[in-house]
Amino acid sequence: PGQLMARIISIAKSIKKLGQDDPRRLIHSFKVGLALSLVSLLYYARPLYDGFGVAGMWAVLTVVVVFEFTVGGTLSKCLNRGFATFLAGGLGIGADYFASLFGKQGEPIVLGILVFVLAAAATFSRFFPRIKARYDYGVLIFILTFSLVAVSGYRVDELVVLAHQRLSTIIMGGATCMLISIFICPVWAGEDLHKAVASNLEKLATYLEGFGDVYFQSCKDEGSGVGSKDGNGKSFLHQGYKSILNSKNSEESLANFARWEPGHGRFPLRYPWKHYLKIGALARQCAYQIEAINGCINSDIQASEEFKSKIEGPCSRMSSECGKALKALATSMKTMTDPSSANPHVENSKAAMKDLKFALKASSMENADFLAIVPVATVGSVLVEITKCIQKISEAVH
Amino acid sequence: PGQLMARIISIAKSIKKLGQDDPRRLIHSFKVGLALSLVSLLYYARPLYDGFGVAGMWAVLTVVVVFEFTVGGTLSKCLNRGFATFLAGGLGIGADYFASLFGKQGEPIVLGILVFVLAAAATFSRFFPRIKARYDYGVLIFILTFSLVAVSGYRVDELVVLAHQRLSTIIMGGATCMLISIFICPVWAGEDLHKAVASNLEKLATYLEGFGDVYFQSCKDEGSGVGSKDGNGKSFLHQGYKSILNSKNSEESLANFARWEPGHGRFPLRYPWKHYLKIGALARQCAYQIEAINGCINSDIQASEEFKSKIEGPCSRMSSECGKALKALATSMKTMTDPSSANPHVENSKAAMKDLKFALKASSMENADFLAIVPVATVGSVLVEITKCIQKISEAVH
Repeated sequence: PGQLMARIISIAKSIKKLGQDDPRRLIHSFKVGLALSLVSLLYYARPLYDGFGVAGMWAVLTVVVVFEFTVGGTLSKCLNRGFATFLAGGLGIGADYFASLFGKQGEPIVLGILVFVLAAAATFSRFFPRIKARYDYGVLIFILTFSLVAVSGYRVDELVVLAHQRLSTIIMGGATCMLISIFICPVWAGEDLHKAVASNLEKLATYLEGFGDVYFQSCKDEGSGVGSKDGNGKSFLHQGYKSILNSKNSEESLANFARWEPGHGRFPLRYPWKHYLKIGALARQCAYQIEAINGCINSDIQASEEFKSKIEGPCSRMSSECGKALKALATSMKTMTDPSSANPHVENSKAAMKDLKFALKASSMENADFLAIVPVATVGSVLVEITKCIQKISEAVH
Repeated sequence: PGQLMARIISIAKSIKKLGQDDPRRLIHSFKVGLALSLVSLLYYARPLYDGFGVAGMWAVLTVVVVFEFTVGGTLSKCLNRGFATFLAGGLGIGADYFASLFGKQGEPIVLGILVFVLAAAATFSRFFPRIKARYDYGVLIFILTFSLVAVSGYRVDELVVLAHQRLSTIIMGGATCMLISIFICPVWAGEDLHKAVASNLEKLATYLEGFGDVYFQSCKDEGSGVGSKDGNGKSFLHQGYKSILNSKNSEESLANFARWEPGHGRFPLRYPWKHYLKIGALARQCAYQIEAINGCINSDIQASEEFKSKIEGPCSRMSSECGKALKALATSMKTMTDPSSANPHVENSKAAMKDLKFALKASSMENADFLAIVPVATVGSVLVEITKCIQKISEAVH
């Protein structure tokens, strides 16, 4: 029993944490419950029941299947479902009529062949990346509705009435979902994408701002020799950038949903969401480079303190200016203001890059220990790549 | 009309390409068509129709929604659907009984509250990453069935008969899907995962095997000065590794599906699929490093030919031995044989790493141009990181 209690407490804690991490999850759950209860009225109220019949259950089904976390997701599923049902219903009735021309004997055979061909073709179309991304659910519903209409048509004669009923209940269920998801604490996919990309830039900035101090400082504190070998320095560095490495899928699905959303807040309809994907890709590029630098910091080759001190100035400046530029870009994205406040930092980082080149050209070391130089040189050169990457990000944001 | 023809031809070509890239897609489409046609028999044949009633359409619905590309996906959806329907059906009947205790007036209110609470709780549970990964579809169906049963119970008195009918048609539809997906040209998620991870190792190997030659050769051919500056050298390098950078999601979903599959071919039940995720993560780590090296190759800083020639030997050996080791590991994974044939290559790459250290320690250059040394040093140091990464991969495969 003690173990059971501990288990329950730990589950309760993780539920609490899940809700605190993003309170919109809790709200979303209540919204789904509300939509379902509302639609259930279709069944409870007698007059409605008489009007809609068993088809009323399609409204319940629609709500459960269609209600997504973001407005864009809900709208995309609703519209896909609506149009696919309409199209497939029409085609199904046509197929029934066509099959009936072949007489009682031929009808089931023709219908079977039609179902087979259309289902196979539609299933194959789901492998197209573009259809997969936007109309996957619609194609699924198309297959479903077409088979149901074509097949049930063999039994029920009042097909048109049935199709009309079903479509109207689906529209009712879909409309309930759309209204609730848009007007009660809406979660806009576009806004989420906007925030996610900006916060990714911030994560990179936090790492870069901290990097110079940690990398060059930690060695001084502990005297030469230990260098960056132990994990101490690293533990100070913000590892948040790691989440950027695998951000591609979530960004793409958010952008896909965002395209379905009406204008909201600061985002008009037809906002260029693809642009965020470009910035996101550059941010990932930058995160890959940081991952490489992280490897160097943990390298077991002793870094040359002499060489380190030679490039410390420009390198620290490069990373901190890059960090500041990213912070400025992220802030300007968030507030949707002119991002030109980042320009001086970008210029500074470019200047620091040049300084690094001069410092390297000018420096000479007697009895240079190349082995010890290598890790430091790597950090410098990857920083140069990062600086270039951040220039591109800055251009993309403008 | 000319434009239209061109459009149609280009679409036809992309259809052909999609089918040729993976012929299993075509087969899958036919399998879905077949399953649907078979299940439609439930409607066509009169005796079956009388037995199943309108519930027969649930079989059609199940087939459309449940049939996935991989066996694991189909099984996971079938089982999720089956158990969720069973559980939710039972709970729904219980809820109906419970609500009926409150009399004609109280019944709809109690039912409404129950639907609201259960739907909200179940929706919230879908945010748990572990439930999301494995039981997402089951929870959806649970909400769906519970609402339908609880709500329709208010109307229909023969709830148990209805539940029994629905469950049996769902089982029939699900069984059709399972049998077809397992016995007709099955696509095993586990095997796909196995192949994907092995082919990722091969892609890395191809890059690394080519790297040494291209990087050190291209400069010699063109004399010093031009160096790796132009893209010529790079164009020879296989860029296939780029697809590894974003492989995380697809690998994880394959591993999730693989867990549902029965033993097949060389993979017994409860095969440790998680292990592939570990190898995949290491391969990604390696791909990040390669991405960093790729940046260095394109650097606009002129590389020092003198320094390059000093580390050419060990660096080329490191990259080619790493490549060979990866090839051997990939082959042994594919044939499921002992991966010890990779050991000598791993040892060689370790030795080359040591050689590089000695070469660096021993080398001295007068008037060393540090600026020109930096990019070369970076390549060397990232290669060291890659070599370490490949040691880890080799350990993981063993």
